[in-house]
Amino acid sequence: MGLIVQKYGGTSVGDLSRIGNVARRVAKAHQEGNDVVVVVSAMAGETDRLIQLAHQVSDTPDLREFDTLISTGEQVSVALLALALQSMGIAAKSFLGPQVRILTDSAFSVARIEKVEVNRLRKELRGGVIPVVAGFQGVDGAGNITTLGRGGSDTTGVALAAALKADVCEIYTDVEGVYTTDPNICPEARKLSIISYEEMMEMASLGAKVLQIRSVEFAKKYNVPIHVRSSFSEKSGTFVTKEDERMEKLLVSGVTYNKNEARLTVVRVPDKPGIASRIFTPISEANIVVDMIIQNSSADGHTDMTFTVPKADFKKALKLVKKAAEEIKAQEVLADENIAKVSIVGAGMRSHAGVASMMFTALAKENINIMMISTSEIKISCVVDAKYGELAARVLHQAFGLEKGEIRKEP
Amino acid sequence: MGLIVQKYGGTSVGDLSRIGNVARRVAKAHQEGNDVVVVVSAMAGETDRLIQLAHQVSDTPDLREFDTLISTGEQVSVALLALALQSMGIAAKSFLGPQVRILTDSAFSVARIEKVEVNRLRKELRGGVIPVVAGFQGVDGAGNITTLGRGGSDTTGVALAAALKADVCEIYTDVEGVYTTDPNICPEARKLSIISYEEMMEMASLGAKVLQIRSVEFAKKYNVPIHVRSSFSEKSGTFVTKEDERMEKLLVSGVTYNKNEARLTVVRVPDKPGIASRIFTPISEANIVVDMIIQNSSADGHTDMTFTVPKADFKKALKLVKKAAEEIKAQEVLADENIAKVSIVGAGMRSHAGVASMMFTALAKENINIMMISTSEIKISCVVDAKYGELAARVLHQAFGLEKGEIRKEP
Repeated sequence: MGLIVQKYGGTSVGDLSRIGNVARRVAKAHQEGNDVVVVVSAMAGETDRLIQLAHQVSDTPDLREFDTLISTGEQVSVALLALALQSMGIAAKSFLGPQVRILTDSAFSVARIEKVEVNRLRKELRGGVIPVVAGFQGVDGAGNITTLGRGGSDTTGVALAAALKADVCEIYTDVEGVYTTDPNICPEARKLSIISYEEMMEMASLGAKVLQIRSVEFAKKYNVPIHVRSSFSEKSGTFVTKEDERMEKLLVSGVTYNKNEARLTVVRVPDKPGIASRIFTPISEANIVVDMIIQNSSADGHTDMTFTVPKADFKKALKLVKKAAEEIKAQEVLADENIAKVSIVGAGMRSHAGVASMMFTALAKENINIMMISTSEIKISCVVDAKYGELAARVLHQAFGLEKGEIRKEP
Repeated sequence: MGLIVQKYGGTSVGDLSRIGNVARRVAKAHQEGNDVVVVVSAMAGETDRLIQLAHQVSDTPDLREFDTLISTGEQVSVALLALALQSMGIAAKSFLGPQVRILTDSAFSVARIEKVEVNRLRKELRGGVIPVVAGFQGVDGAGNITTLGRGGSDTTGVALAAALKADVCEIYTDVEGVYTTDPNICPEARKLSIISYEEMMEMASLGAKVLQIRSVEFAKKYNVPIHVRSSFSEKSGTFVTKEDERMEKLLVSGVTYNKNEARLTVVRVPDKPGIASRIFTPISEANIVVDMIIQNSSADGHTDMTFTVPKADFKKALKLVKKAAEEIKAQEVLADENIAKVSIVGAGMRSHAGVASMMFTALAKENINIMMISTSEIKISCVVDAKYGELAARVLHQAFGLEKGEIRKEP
């Protein structure tokens, strides 16, 4: 018995029979005595259809109009879900972003929530009505419709849960929770029962597409417990919460990997101040996001500069870097699209020095060469040859005992 | 040079190339030095698609949710048209009903406009921006989205034109204007260059589906000149205005006909007070709209009562009437689905007695029997056998000289 915010993604409301399924789930939580607020995304495929329409009319659509257009997807979903609940005899009412109201800044298509008003929703809850709120959309101070960017419905759910001080924000998706690694490449992957906000953020940014990273930041900031679970199963999923005693015993929570990056090396760069800027300024001006950067220590007044960019921007980046390399009189530019990035994530490694060497040893045992390394407080990433990517993920998954539970830190 | 409100219907924005066509038309009016406000309907077929979705979820959908759902059709259109204008280098901005704001009562799906705020639109016009306003939708005092009923976008257009004191409200559709009769049954049908509000209302309610009748009432009330024209042609269409000197010379402006009604006769009804109520109360309680009613004068304490109902409600009405006839001890109930209603409409007949007899004579010459007659100030309707419907329309069209211009009243 409590207040639950339930957020359902596009596949969960992908057609009318699935909307009926969602209505039954909502009804169940309600009949168990909970106050329920529902947040829904657009029906799967609908947002893409609307985006295509916009791009057929304009190569670079004005983002205010774009947001007005694509926010109709969620408007359709909330009305249909409210109707489905009503046809089961349950009082329900749809609310759009401006009706709630979910106030955002005016950064169309990537708007950030500034304030969520909850008086209207509280009033409906007191009256026994289930509010069905459109995810992904808000309104700016001038009354323009805004959207929160891809996956923004997660953020809507978490923001509502924070503002309503809900007991939990349940994020319903088409997988059963957050896994130790991608089950498609590692059959031993195991569903995590609990993970910290920080770990989830590292997992999300590394390619585990379960939760929008911004929603996790939001949940961390307001300490909203998230429960990621499947709308097609009754099983408990993964709780995302603040770090607790129990979690600290975990060394590594998950292994992620992706093949979406490419590597560039500028060879024999003169080792002088301002050189890095000469290389990276044109790249950032072209809106290309650089991920890992490594500079070898200088020996003879020259150094090698290696970094990775998204594969989609590879050709553009290569052209810019070649031009810069010529200007700064570097020797040459090497490029490699066949790389994979494998990472281990775990809050436990923060206070444990041996994790990196365990990782390198495990890879070495399989003769997998490490091309680049980068680390954060709770993550270590290695770039390896693409053909060893999946193997590396499986090896690390096993090395840290993720298939059987967890390797605990020594006392 | 002036202020023009242009309203485009569903077929005019039926696909992206047609939206492009509309954008070019809007641009032209703008480049000619006019201030332009555009009102658009949903893309043809879209509203029906959304209605079907609602009915698949619920047999009797809650109308608040229904309006939230179907209003997305216009939201998509305004965004796409604004984008199309922008891609031509023209400043344009979409506005939804709540953004304008178009304030209505809370009668969902059949809401009536109570007030149109124009400050925001005026501000945009002063800034050289073309506002593209969603037709058909408004917002009630509580912030709920409402819709105005089928064809409601016409009313939006006229209401905006009235509030903005526009010079004209152009209603773009897929025909070239208002015709003297249906060109499909009478090849001599001629486009009218001008027609009065009153005549247009009679024409609209009699089946000429060019304009929503409510929009004409609105135009009459605020004296907004309407120009009905085709979005696929440059030709001038039909002006709908208040009666003027010129129009008064016209005897008959148009001939309408429809086959959508059925006739019921209750034979030998005891002629006592309260009997008509016993027959019509159950029918009105079943939400069946009775059109023509005729009661023969009583002879021997009994009378015959004849009336028409929409064909769609015929069976239901027949059942109710049979029951009532039994209760009031009428002799029997006769029913006839094979009827057509033919009408002549003209502001001129108001001050001219001979029109009815011209009509009856013309029909008699062709041996067309008249079953029922009803009249208003500017309209005479006759019910005839269905098989003579089209013929009757053609005969009347010729009798009143509509194919060659007009028959003028004698001085």
